[in-house]
Amino acid sequence: MPSQRAMETTPFAAMDVLAKAERMDDVVHMEVGEPDFEPPAAATEAAIASLSNGGADYTNSRGKIELREAIREYYDRTYGVDVPTERIIATPGSSPALLVTMLDVVDPGEEVVLTDPYYAPYPNFVRQAEGRISTVDLDPAAGFEPRVQDFERAVDRDTAAVLINSPQNPTGAVMSGDSIEALAGLAERTDTRLISDEVYHGLDFDAPAHTALEYTDEAFVLDGVSKRYSMTGWRLGWMVVPPGEVTAVNNLVQNVLICAPNFVQDGATAAIRTEAHWLDDIRDTYRERRDILLEAAREWGIDMGYSPAGAYYLLLDVSDLPGDAFQIADRFLEEAGVALTPGPDFGELAEDTLRASFATSTADIEDAIERLDPLLSEQQMH
Amino acid sequence: MPSQRAMETTPFAAMDVLAKAERMDDVVHMEVGEPDFEPPAAATEAAIASLSNGGADYTNSRGKIELREAIREYYDRTYGVDVPTERIIATPGSSPALLVTMLDVVDPGEEVVLTDPYYAPYPNFVRQAEGRISTVDLDPAAGFEPRVQDFERAVDRDTAAVLINSPQNPTGAVMSGDSIEALAGLAERTDTRLISDEVYHGLDFDAPAHTALEYTDEAFVLDGVSKRYSMTGWRLGWMVVPPGEVTAVNNLVQNVLICAPNFVQDGATAAIRTEAHWLDDIRDTYRERRDILLEAAREWGIDMGYSPAGAYYLLLDVSDLPGDAFQIADRFLEEAGVALTPGPDFGELAEDTLRASFATSTADIEDAIERLDPLLSEQQMH
Repeated sequence: MPSQRAMETTPFAAMDVLAKAERMDDVVHMEVGEPDFEPPAAATEAAIASLSNGGADYTNSRGKIELREAIREYYDRTYGVDVPTERIIATPGSSPALLVTMLDVVDPGEEVVLTDPYYAPYPNFVRQAEGRISTVDLDPAAGFEPRVQDFERAVDRDTAAVLINSPQNPTGAVMSGDSIEALAGLAERTDTRLISDEVYHGLDFDAPAHTALEYTDEAFVLDGVSKRYSMTGWRLGWMVVPPGEVTAVNNLVQNVLICAPNFVQDGATAAIRTEAHWLDDIRDTYRERRDILLEAAREWGIDMGYSPAGAYYLLLDVSDLPGDAFQIADRFLEEAGVALTPGPDFGELAEDTLRASFATSTADIEDAIERLDPLLSEQQMH
Repeated sequence: MPSQRAMETTPFAAMDVLAKAERMDDVVHMEVGEPDFEPPAAATEAAIASLSNGGADYTNSRGKIELREAIREYYDRTYGVDVPTERIIATPGSSPALLVTMLDVVDPGEEVVLTDPYYAPYPNFVRQAEGRISTVDLDPAAGFEPRVQDFERAVDRDTAAVLINSPQNPTGAVMSGDSIEALAGLAERTDTRLISDEVYHGLDFDAPAHTALEYTDEAFVLDGVSKRYSMTGWRLGWMVVPPGEVTAVNNLVQNVLICAPNFVQDGATAAIRTEAHWLDDIRDTYRERRDILLEAAREWGIDMGYSPAGAYYLLLDVSDLPGDAFQIADRFLEEAGVALTPGPDFGELAEDTLRASFATSTADIEDAIERLDPLLSEQQMH
């Protein structure tokens, strides 16, 4: 019999929808965040060169120094903050980095404060460390921007950490620098940890996203190459660790992960060294897709009154449609051939929502809108 | 402050020795298990082809079906056992697979029975799941073969699992099929889990190593491409999971690991499909190195009266030399330029030992023996 924590670990419904959608023909995939762009050519070339030259050995458990230097330069260039390479640890994806963070930060029974909605797997990460979650509600009318006073109320003596994600999955909301700074201050005052998942950084459409590193050295910051460099399947993430946690975190990484793949690190190094303007066209395209999708949602009356300022997700309000979110997602998939993710995995406040990813091509998004239109015209489904 | 479990997680001394040795010039590296052979050419070619063709997307969290088919064929070809692909889950290295196994199998306070000596990180894996370890002693005079009755005595109502490793790190000992079969029976009788770490399979010099899958469907079996295909830095492992645990384990993997890197999976698929005789020369070379090293150890009087039947490690008894194992390892490094791993990390019974890896080249091993000879001749150090 699996352990209690394993039994309490819920499947990630996006993956289940993907599995079902994969068995069908002619489906527009808007259920996973899989960018349709190519990685920077330099990344692929560097990984191939590394492989050809025998880049097959273990590396330092923190990652190759060239990779960590590239990450340091990235923070300096992008945010003007200096992060010593000693505090940077590369991992096989940012998910294992979050797991290690939880194992490092959370003692059994302690609490991690999340926003609701949240990235679906977050509570499962907390469970692996035998922790509990507590949530602060996000309001679509406020653009899903968290209110600092809600976090202040939620943090108590059992709190180990506050976990934020900006730009956010599943809403696409981007937190203001002021909010992040206030949460960094809250964490320092209350002797808790701020954990900032910044994996969608670079994909911000209206104003630049801010890193917690601008405001504090005491946060855990998680990032990786998956999203902004369209390198999801490379599985290369990193964490920036508070100075006092470097030894403990490195012990964990060295024991349970060993290191990130050697030549993948070399490819990621090249990606991270790509000039920032490489992303401009991609960001513009995402913004355009957001606008197309948002306009359709408004016409159908299923928008939530906000516009995602980053990432590549839009949360849709389907509370007025017949059935629950799972049934509606099923119907969209079977009757229109459009795969969206049912909201309930993303928290109580997402219960009557679907998540649409606009990481798929503009043509596919336009196709999806045409396919859904007959179902969502007022005569049909309302 | 790090969590209790993080503070109790010990550094892996082999990595610390490596870090120190890396700062020195002219060192023979016998402290890490880094094969000096090349991966199968087909593996590198397949990974490059995959990268060139855009193999950069997420895969199924269990791994691509081609990889799982290759693993299934490997078990059929090598051991004559049929393992359905549904029970095979690819991971970014076998270490994350062991972490997921522990999270799936061990409830807080439960016990995992290990042999002593053990692979140094094992207790740290158990700690991540809030478990405790209990050990059964291995006797060098018995070739470090565990006695089944010792396990029978060690398993009690608090036991969640028995964890074995054959061929073993750090001794190189290979368990008999009878022993593994008896432990599989013990696990089934006592409603505990047998976890079999088989990552050194294929590197057996005297008689073939046996997989737990020959005797039971209810074991967790861990393996990967690191050792027998000399692909340590690729970080591709897998687990074979009991039928009743597939859903729970896949939930864990899908949440905290997402998937193994896409093109790495393609390279691993090609490696695993390599004909078994590809390994013959490599195995012969390891055997030859073992014999060279063992002969030197016997001449110096620091052998432990056994011969490693697999893997690429030899445990050396340094109890008669002045100082403790750390001091002796330091002296070997500084005075002879030979890096070996101090034994204490590998358990109480390895306290007065050093671990020598013969994954390094034959020429380097001969060089190391020449360098150590003046220190270990009876006049000098005894």
